[in-house]
Amino acid sequence: MPLDALFDQRSIAIIGASPKPGFPSRVPQFLLKFGYPGKVYPINPKYQELFGLKAYPNLAAVPDEVDLALIIVGAKHVMPLLEECAEKGVKTAVVFSSGFSETGEEGKALQEEMRRLCERTGLRVLGPNCLGYVDVSHKLVVTSASLMERLRDLDEVKDSSIAFITQSGALGSMTYGEAYRQGAGFRYFVSTGNEVDIEVSEVASYVIEDPAVNVVGLYLESVKNPEHLRVLAEKSARLDKPVAALKVGRSSVGKRAAASHTGSIAGSDQVYDAFFRQHGILRAKDMQELVDFLMLASCGRMVKGDRLGVITLSGGAGIMISDQCEDLGIQVPELSAADQDRIRPFIPPFGSAANPVDITAEVLGKPEILKPSLEALTKAENIDAVLVFFGLVDHMALRLIDDIHEVYRQTDKPIVVTWYAGSDEVMKKLSDYRIPAYRDPSRAVGAIRLLMEYQKRRQIQKQAGQAHAVAAGEPAGAGPAEAIREQLRQQIAAGKTHLNEYEAKQLFAAYGIPVGRSRLATSADEAVKAAEDIGYPVVMKVASADILHKTDAGGVMLNIRTPEEVRQAYERIVANARQYAPGARIDGVLVEEMLEADREVILGVIQDATFGPTLMFGLGGVFVEVLKDVSFRVCPLSPADAREMIREIKGIQILEGARGKKPADVDQLADILVRISRMATDLSDFVEEMEINPLLISADGQRLVAADGLIKLHAKK
Amino acid sequence: MPLDALFDQRSIAIIGASPKPGFPSRVPQFLLKFGYPGKVYPINPKYQELFGLKAYPNLAAVPDEVDLALIIVGAKHVMPLLEECAEKGVKTAVVFSSGFSETGEEGKALQEEMRRLCERTGLRVLGPNCLGYVDVSHKLVVTSASLMERLRDLDEVKDSSIAFITQSGALGSMTYGEAYRQGAGFRYFVSTGNEVDIEVSEVASYVIEDPAVNVVGLYLESVKNPEHLRVLAEKSARLDKPVAALKVGRSSVGKRAAASHTGSIAGSDQVYDAFFRQHGILRAKDMQELVDFLMLASCGRMVKGDRLGVITLSGGAGIMISDQCEDLGIQVPELSAADQDRIRPFIPPFGSAANPVDITAEVLGKPEILKPSLEALTKAENIDAVLVFFGLVDHMALRLIDDIHEVYRQTDKPIVVTWYAGSDEVMKKLSDYRIPAYRDPSRAVGAIRLLMEYQKRRQIQKQAGQAHAVAAGEPAGAGPAEAIREQLRQQIAAGKTHLNEYEAKQLFAAYGIPVGRSRLATSADEAVKAAEDIGYPVVMKVASADILHKTDAGGVMLNIRTPEEVRQAYERIVANARQYAPGARIDGVLVEEMLEADREVILGVIQDATFGPTLMFGLGGVFVEVLKDVSFRVCPLSPADAREMIREIKGIQILEGARGKKPADVDQLADILVRISRMATDLSDFVEEMEINPLLISADGQRLVAADGLIKLHAKK
Repeated sequence: MPLDALFDQRSIAIIGASPKPGFPSRVPQFLLKFGYPGKVYPINPKYQELFGLKAYPNLAAVPDEVDLALIIVGAKHVMPLLEECAEKGVKTAVVFSSGFSETGEEGKALQEEMRRLCERTGLRVLGPNCLGYVDVSHKLVVTSASLMERLRDLDEVKDSSIAFITQSGALGSMTYGEAYRQGAGFRYFVSTGNEVDIEVSEVASYVIEDPAVNVVGLYLESVKNPEHLRVLAEKSARLDKPVAALKVGRSSVGKRAAASHTGSIAGSDQVYDAFFRQHGILRAKDMQELVDFLMLASCGRMVKGDRLGVITLSGGAGIMISDQCEDLGIQVPELSAADQDRIRPFIPPFGSAANPVDITAEVLGKPEILKPSLEALTKAENIDAVLVFFGLVDHMALRLIDDIHEVYRQTDKPIVVTWYAGSDEVMKKLSDYRIPAYRDPSRAVGAIRLLMEYQKRRQIQKQAGQAHAVAAGEPAGAGPAEAIREQLRQQIAAGKTHLNEYEAKQLFAAYGIPVGRSRLATSADEAVKAAEDIGYPVVMKVASADILHKTDAGGVMLNIRTPEEVRQAYERIVANARQYAPGARIDGVLVEEMLEADREVILGVIQDATFGPTLMFGLGGVFVEVLKDVSFRVCPLSPADAREMIREIKGIQILEGARGKKPADVDQLADILVRISRMATDLSDFVEEMEINPLLISADGQRLVAADGLIKLHAKK
Repeated sequence: MPLDALFDQRSIAIIGASPKPGFPSRVPQFLLKFGYPGKVYPINPKYQELFGLKAYPNLAAVPDEVDLALIIVGAKHVMPLLEECAEKGVKTAVVFSSGFSETGEEGKALQEEMRRLCERTGLRVLGPNCLGYVDVSHKLVVTSASLMERLRDLDEVKDSSIAFITQSGALGSMTYGEAYRQGAGFRYFVSTGNEVDIEVSEVASYVIEDPAVNVVGLYLESVKNPEHLRVLAEKSARLDKPVAALKVGRSSVGKRAAASHTGSIAGSDQVYDAFFRQHGILRAKDMQELVDFLMLASCGRMVKGDRLGVITLSGGAGIMISDQCEDLGIQVPELSAADQDRIRPFIPPFGSAANPVDITAEVLGKPEILKPSLEALTKAENIDAVLVFFGLVDHMALRLIDDIHEVYRQTDKPIVVTWYAGSDEVMKKLSDYRIPAYRDPSRAVGAIRLLMEYQKRRQIQKQAGQAHAVAAGEPAGAGPAEAIREQLRQQIAAGKTHLNEYEAKQLFAAYGIPVGRSRLATSADEAVKAAEDIGYPVVMKVASADILHKTDAGGVMLNIRTPEEVRQAYERIVANARQYAPGARIDGVLVEEMLEADREVILGVIQDATFGPTLMFGLGGVFVEVLKDVSFRVCPLSPADAREMIREIKGIQILEGARGKKPADVDQLADILVRISRMATDLSDFVEEMEINPLLISADGQRLVAADGLIKLHAKK
């Protein structure tokens, strides 16, 4: 495996080790202090001995193979040393040094040089400008991060099943510090810095295979290669270990200008969101939620559904927690009569056995009522996880926690404890028992929400997997790809920038997307013939790749009912178009069937800078233009993705049949989304943007037709 | 003042004091331990002496006036003791005992009896089923809450300027515990329990007058008397002290069935939201945010706008915090060139002076760069508050905090510190300096958001105040009230349940709400005459209070252009209506001008169970029916309220002129909202629901007309 040398190696050279304060001394000191079991070779020509070890003047002088090199020298010295590493056969180097792409043009050039060296020699590099990493399994503390001063030894975190991989060293190490402060700590912590070579998701894909890892957290500012993220997502699904990310940088600055709606509406953050959803990667809203979730998931317990049991000693707390659950889509269902009967004997008559279960403050006088009621709630048939709410009561907290722990041991459902205003002693005892615990209930509810979201994602993915398996047996929509690609190649070579509506619809039709009956006429006579073949009434539109806004050009006429009207319309459309755009090439006039539709949707494809072809879906009119009520998915889509992206829009009731309308055929719509997404993937080398606007839906909801289409080609190179 | 005896009294009797564990011993012990300076009389016939004080067999035996009585006996003994209190001239009693409305029918009856006693005798009662209160100013610890075990003496919280009033004793005392744990504590803590008499907002209105109080927090499950809340809000505005509430119980169960859109869409929680907004009461999303805000506001510093300066040692943290700010509507503006020039000399070239200001990890080697850059950021012209982000770095944290403190002292802008993974020592030092500090940046940003929201609310209220002053000079729309009230009184007495469209519009017109030209015709001839007077084209509609859905009844015909068409329409409408609703009383046919409108809105009034007449506003069609895109305000509205409730809907661009339409006259619309809200207030004794649906807006945006209206009357009693 390409990252083996990072986590599993026999020897490390520390190039630039020295007794000076900062990185040069802290990196070797931490490595030795935390008991690295392999060989360590300090490299520094100025010293014979360093940190009690023989020092070497350079890498070549080391009389042994070196698997891993740590580079802690000024930026300008790094490149020659990496060359030496490559010569010596070092597999991986960690470059702590800063002064690369984060500092300006010169640094960028230096980093580009480093990238080429990696490519040329096969040397893998973590960094530059990184804070190194910690791997508790292999007793590897390869970092200068000051958080390691807080740890006495690695045994303190040896039970952690959390891996945390971060693009920000500072924020990442603080996050480790915060998790450690809360009694957790991370089994793996890796800072990837500027990512000249090794990326966050590549590291995550490696460590997620460690059987001791239950959950992976990511801090991301940007993703260079989404393929690594796809691989990570696949492993997450295969191993059934959740991956949760905090992706920052939502306030997108450089929004690209684009001709279509889709281009102007898509913000790259929404595309990240879509990609995460499609691939079952969880997204935390902030660092606190991420850490809270990692701590919950590290207990290794999963839920089967989204139904939470809540048990409190305060009616008010029960109401407050129910509110928070409702806001986040977590159910707090009433327990069955039988389950309530099991709880009722233990609690006072003014308590509640319904859920939230209120055992009342009477528990403070009779602590013995907690255990049997918690036990019954945990076993209740319609409960997937349990939240226990207590607070203060220092004098009897430890006794109550013992009881909670006994119930916790006997179940495999997650139990989360909220101990509001809990003392440090209380929180430590809960942590020692490895029971996920928070002081504030909103944090517990936020973490539970992500666990339930994970379960939901996994289910959708499984369905998608099955649907893919079925689809594989069908004749693929990808059949026409090669011929079409060749045709587009030629058109781009000829300088064409857009396909006209007629051409675009032909491509859509080739991918099995329904388009209305339509003919291109180049004379009034041809138009009459076309109208008679299609059947009245018809619509007529100017066909010109140079006129994008046909209505503005007076180039669209509706509801044409006689041959005479067809002739008049033909002449008028051509005349209007000539006047509107004198230089435009007019290919003729499209004659189309007039569709009786009562709803419309928009489908658009853009090229996202990170993820490539990306599909947008929305309802027509105010829904897109005013409300920005749209959803995104990265192409290609599974049928499950398509159904989900349809359901995601706020105006979904319009399709489901609000306001007296008939439900639209959502399966057919999903199929069209899948087809355009395949088309976008097949043709991504040639197509810059695509849009079907509108896709009309007939009043009975059963006929869906692309009524207008736009395809923008990549510029000729 | 009616609550004086609660906070400012010379003598307290403790009825039911005893050495037994629980309330009977803890209440007197805490009172004495924390140094209550007045006289204390334990009342218990079984003892001669209690807690070192002479005990009395009953209240009458006390040879002195008693201002305040604490009742800590079983529920069934409470009523006779309250009678004794009233006889003795006790001003206020605190009833700790539970067993009242929270326990069932019997308890409810007992509490109702208590309510009547209060009314009859003038005795004020806090509780029952409450946890008492703490008033640090008067050294009054009148509670058994276990949180008081954590305090050594009241000096620990004597600097607190926070008052916290709660309907939940358990949750409230835990909140005190949590605030205390974080270094704050509350100056006032009052648990109001079942609120037989004294309510949360009444207590809050009292304590907010204490000059030592800077901010008030409320925990609310329901509001019995919104008048108290209005008074509190007025004091908050007058004294310029923020009031923040956590209102729980959003998941409204019993949604009332109602005839109009408004009724079925309004959830009472949205009305709470509206009321809070109108009155400048802040609403926290959860308890953590409430406590975070109280701690920030207690420093007494206000902002002038919503522009935040952020200073970090990590680019990643800056991005993360900017995201969080954007989500909450907080600006992180770029600093002016001059301000950037002031910062740049202190930070390394790869840092950023733009905002977020990134002083980089170089500060760890050169701590002296923090102070001047923070100073310059704080002074920057377009910055209203500053967030400082650090984390870990235990070894130099204290030095950095000293520098932050120096800058803090020299400015009156709020500075908030986030110290991610900060040690207890770090957090304590920040707390000792009274600098608002949080470990997690999202918490800091949430608290800052509320402070900025407060400033915005205050501004809107000031504008509203000015607008009210102007409006007072105008002829009031309330002129027709008395005549209309009399008319409605008679109609209800006659068993009428609804006004027909014509009658409703007459009332709207009387309040100055524009209605179209309209005449009621009782024959085809009259209809023709009406149409000729109004001018063609016209609309004709059946007039019947018994037919609410006129279109369904075939009772509406549009675009009628000739006398012949009018005659036909008349006959057809009457025939359709007779067939649709054979028993209905048909008053005739309305003939109205046909308005050329291209947009429509809906105005509706419902009676909220807590707040009375409440106005809903929304755009017509899918916006209300599918998207529930509506806003609420409690009547009457100020013009500022009206403008805000218009701006609040998501589809606001429709009115502002999206999709090629002309902007609608929003001031005229706001005026109509104000008028219908006055009407709703004037007529609330008679009117159950009102709706104008649609209010049409002409294509030029300048003419607004109520095209249809519904008024539902209260049922005859």
